[in-house]
Order: sequence, then C-alpha cells, then structure tokens
Amino acid sequence: MSVTVFFAAGPALWPEYKNHLPAALAKAGLDARILTEPPADPASVDYIVFAPMGIIADFTPYFRARAVLNLWAGVERIVGNATLTQPLCRMVDPGLTEGMVEYVTGHVLRHHLGMDTHIHGQDGIWRNDTIPPLARERRVTMLGLGELGSAAARALAALNFRVTGWSRTPRDVPGIRCLSGTEGLAEALSGAKIVVTLLPNTPATQNVLNAETLPLLAPGAFVINPGRGALIDDQALIVALDSGQIAHATLDVFRTEPLPAEHPFWAHPKVTVTPHIAADTRPGTAAHVIAENIRRSEAGEPFLHLVDRKAGY
Amino acid sequence: MSVTVFFAAGPALWPEYKNHLPAALAKAGLDARILTEPPADPASVDYIVFAPMGIIADFTPYFRARAVLNLWAGVERIVGNATLTQPLCRMVDPGLTEGMVEYVTGHVLRHHLGMDTHIHGQDGIWRNDTIPPLARERRVTMLGLGELGSAAARALAALNFRVTGWSRTPRDVPGIRCLSGTEGLAEALSGAKIVVTLLPNTPATQNVLNAETLPLLAPGAFVINPGRGALIDDQALIVALDSGQIAHATLDVFRTEPLPAEHPFWAHPKVTVTPHIAADTRPGTAAHVIAENIRRSEAGEPFLHLVDRKAGY
Repeated sequence: MSVTVFFAAGPALWPEYKNHLPAALAKAGLDARILTEPPADPASVDYIVFAPMGIIADFTPYFRARAVLNLWAGVERIVGNATLTQPLCRMVDPGLTEGMVEYVTGHVLRHHLGMDTHIHGQDGIWRNDTIPPLARERRVTMLGLGELGSAAARALAALNFRVTGWSRTPRDVPGIRCLSGTEGLAEALSGAKIVVTLLPNTPATQNVLNAETLPLLAPGAFVINPGRGALIDDQALIVALDSGQIAHATLDVFRTEPLPAEHPFWAHPKVTVTPHIAADTRPGTAAHVIAENIRRSEAGEPFLHLVDRKAGY
Repeated sequence: MSVTVFFAAGPALWPEYKNHLPAALAKAGLDARILTEPPADPASVDYIVFAPMGIIADFTPYFRARAVLNLWAGVERIVGNATLTQPLCRMVDPGLTEGMVEYVTGHVLRHHLGMDTHIHGQDGIWRNDTIPPLARERRVTMLGLGELGSAAARALAALNFRVTGWSRTPRDVPGIRCLSGTEGLAEALSGAKIVVTLLPNTPATQNVLNAETLPLLAPGAFVINPGRGALIDDQALIVALDSGQIAHATLDVFRTEPLPAEHPFWAHPKVTVTPHIAADTRPGTAAHVIAENIRRSEAGEPFLHLVDRKAGY
C-alpha cells in the first residue's frame, strides 16, 4: 500500500528517526513516501507524525490526513487544538515504558534505602545505626494506572513494595490494590510513605497533590513526579517540604521547562530536579508503533492508543 | 522436645531476638530453655546461636552441642576455628536476602540512570542531553550465585538488565547466563558495565577484582561490592578509578570495619562508602530459620544451610 507520511515532529528528531522509520514502514508492508518538510500540497498527506515542538500548529490544510500520530505519551499540548479533526493517537512505546519503569524503580529504591545520606555524607563517619525497613514494610502509592503507572506499579510490587494504585476511573492491575475516584484518592494517599505521580495532565488531575492531600501522606513521605508538572501544586509542596511532612521530592516535570534557574525547586535542599529524562520515546521501538498504526488504518483495523479527545488522554 | 539453646551472639543482639526467638521455637514445637550467659555446665547446651561479636571463642567446653547456628550469611570468622567440631550452619534469612536484593537493585539502577549527576548537580542547569540507555542494553555481571547473588541476579534480569552470573563451581540460575571457573571469570567480566560482587570470602575469591581483572570491564564501568571487603584489591581499584577505567565504586564492606576515617575511599570523589548496611539479618525472620534447624536436628532431618568447612562457606 502506498502512503504519504509527513514527519512533522521537527528537524531535531528526524536524524534519529531516519534510521528507523523507513525500515519500520517497509517491514509493516507499506510503500511509504516520507516528507520532512511541509509539502506544496498538504492534501497529499495521509498520516502526520507529530511532536509538540514540531512544525504544525494548524491542521486545517491537512484535512485529508487519516490520523495524527503523536510521538509522546502526553497529548495535552495537542488534544485541545480545535483545528485537529483527525483521529489522534498517543505513543505507547515499549522503550518509553521500560525507561519509565527504570526511573521510577530506581528513585523509589533511592528514597527507600536512604541513599542520599551516603551519597552526600562521605566524611569518614560510619553511620550504620539506621537500617532501612524492607520493601514489604513500605507503602508506595502510584497515582495513575495507565500504561506507565501500571507497569511501574507491577515492577515495585515484584520488589515486594506494598503498592496501592489509584486512577480516576476504576482499573484492575493484578497484584496491586486498586482504588479510584475522589474517595479512593484520600484512601490511597493516607499513610503512604512514597507517592509516584503518573497521571495524564487533565483539568481533573491538575494539582492532585496539594495543601489538602499532601498532609494525608505518612510524615516524612517522599514524592516522585515523572508524570506532568501540573499534577503538583508547587507552593503547597514547598510548604510541606519546609514543615518536614514531605522529606524529599524528586521531580522530572514542571509547569515551565526547562525549569527556570530562579525557580525555588533548584535551590531547595529537599528537592531533586531531573531534567525531563524519566522516559524518552526511543526511535527504534517507537517507529514500529507508528508503522503498525498506519498499517492498521490502511487495513481498516482500529488504531492502537487512540486518544479520547473529551477525556483528554 | 526439650532443648537448651545458648544465645551466644551477645547482649547487643539479644534485645532484638528476645521478641522473636522464644516464639519461633515454641511455634516449631520445641520446649526450649534459652540461656543468654555462659552456663555453669557448658555440656548442658544443645544448640549454640552464634555471631562473631559474641561471647564464645573456644567451643571445646560445648562438645555436647549438636550444632552451631550462625546468625550471619558469612562464616569466615568462625569457619577456621579449630575448636569447632560441631556442624555449623549459615544464616539464610529471607529478610536478609530481600534487603540485599533491594540494595543491589537500587545501586545498580542508581549508576545505570546516572542519578548522582542530578543529586549533586542542583545548580539551575537543565542537563537533558544524555538519556541513559535502557536496562536491556546494559551488561551487568554478578560475581557469586549463592542465595544472595542469584536472588539479586534474578531481580535485575526481571528489570531487563542483561545479566551474566559467575560462580567458582558451575551453577544454573534460570534466565541468567551462568559462567564458572577461571576462564569463565574473564568472559563474565569482559565488557561488563556494572559488576556486583557477592562471593563468599575464601582464599579462592580474595582480590577477584584486581589489576588484571578490572581492565576487562567496559571503560567507565561501575563496581558495587556488598559482599566482602577482601574480594577487591583496594589499591588496584583506586588506580582504575583514577584512570577512568572504573567510573564509580559503591562499597559496603571493607577489610577493616568501620572503615578508618583516613582510608582513601572516604575522600575519593568516585567512591561511595556505605557502612555495611546492604543486608542485615532480621530477627523476625531469622528466628524462624534458627528454630527450624533445631526442629530438624531433633527430628533427625538434615540441617538447612550446613557449611562445607573445607570450601569455607
């Protein structure tokens, strides 16, 4: 099948994808022409590969495109675009999921084991008086049970952490205590020692960790946010860090990125800023997801990871 | 069955065990009298619970004891004791194993993810140019495939790390590429990016990481030693750190503990010293292992975790 694919994710990403996307499309049995610049005739484009930093803001000229395929898991910067009338698919990349599981598991273990005390404290003093409890004695709460949250929750449960998962609408993840809705949120947070936020950014999830919910956690709890910056009320978090209610926050995502050098998170001794590296789409695996969705569309099969525009993810 | 158990692990440990050991012995169906001080008649002792910092150095008066039950996994400080003629059992405590798996997994992920760059670098500079590879692209080598090494190797493989295990004598751990012997050692180390040492301390394993073997690793490799201090040639490690062959070493065990404040490891910017906290015997679980071994002995069943005095573990 012959299709025209417009790689509209921008010239910064193309060098990585040019080694993977043509091969993935060919492997899917597609005879694809790939454009990396806006064509003279936008109506000739069948599929748009998209990233927010890319080169399309107005989808109107691409009215004949059969789908917009987002390269990232989060779609908040495109889902509200009124000019977008085509089906929109999120990226669910096995490489991205693996990277996220590794980041979450690593930072949960870092805080669980109290690593920072030793990383910072190389001063010749042998501090062996505090052995951390076992993972099976630690309550970890995962906010968000989508592809990423449920994979991370399962990895933590496999290491014996007592994992509670929460999602807006009910979900069932084997081996995880799953709660949902507003009442479930209070129950999921109450007494948790480590909280990980992996929710999509929607009006319903913004500031889910705030001045009312942060005090529900166990005293001296840890917050890890590799999801979206808007999930946390920054000011409420700083207040909770200063009071000791939160012992430390490791944050990978922010309302403004790069996080401005003058933002108080950088200088706060109880905050670790990581620069939006928790999970990156990997061209080698993502290219196959793109190709598979185009193949499905051409074969009349349903899209994978189709975004519900109303729910926002 | 009525038995006399001498808790000879010392007064420092008894307060933790007194909450667990009597109950565990009763649960095993044993009518046990527990002594915490050397008795007037050593021949009345049936079983000795032992720790190296304890109160017995000469086992001769306890010639009637049916076993010495060590509270730790490592037995190098007792195995060569010529006065010990009784069966010696190591501790294989599920709590200790879990703690070790958590320490190893946490520090492997820490180095894999390059966490220290961010933990130390909270200076307002957004360094998102280096995304770490995925675990499935990382070669990790586990030296030692006993109870602890094989459990840690399995946990790392479950996180997709490419794990090679090595042991002196051949072992088979499902899902792990297992090598053994002298030739296998060179193959196991060659190109490994992260090496974890979890071997027993025996004449055959001392200085397994030395000036000849450290250069086999991938350039910029990471060394994690939660096993025994003598497994590494300290001076060779420092040379390899200074040359950049080893990027960082995280060491939990040392030839002399506490590690003296003047030891160069403390001040070395590429070394993290942790104070022998990787894994601790947990009285709540260890007490049941002790009780089970006494029950087995009384029932004429073979001991669990009997030490091979010749092999030294």
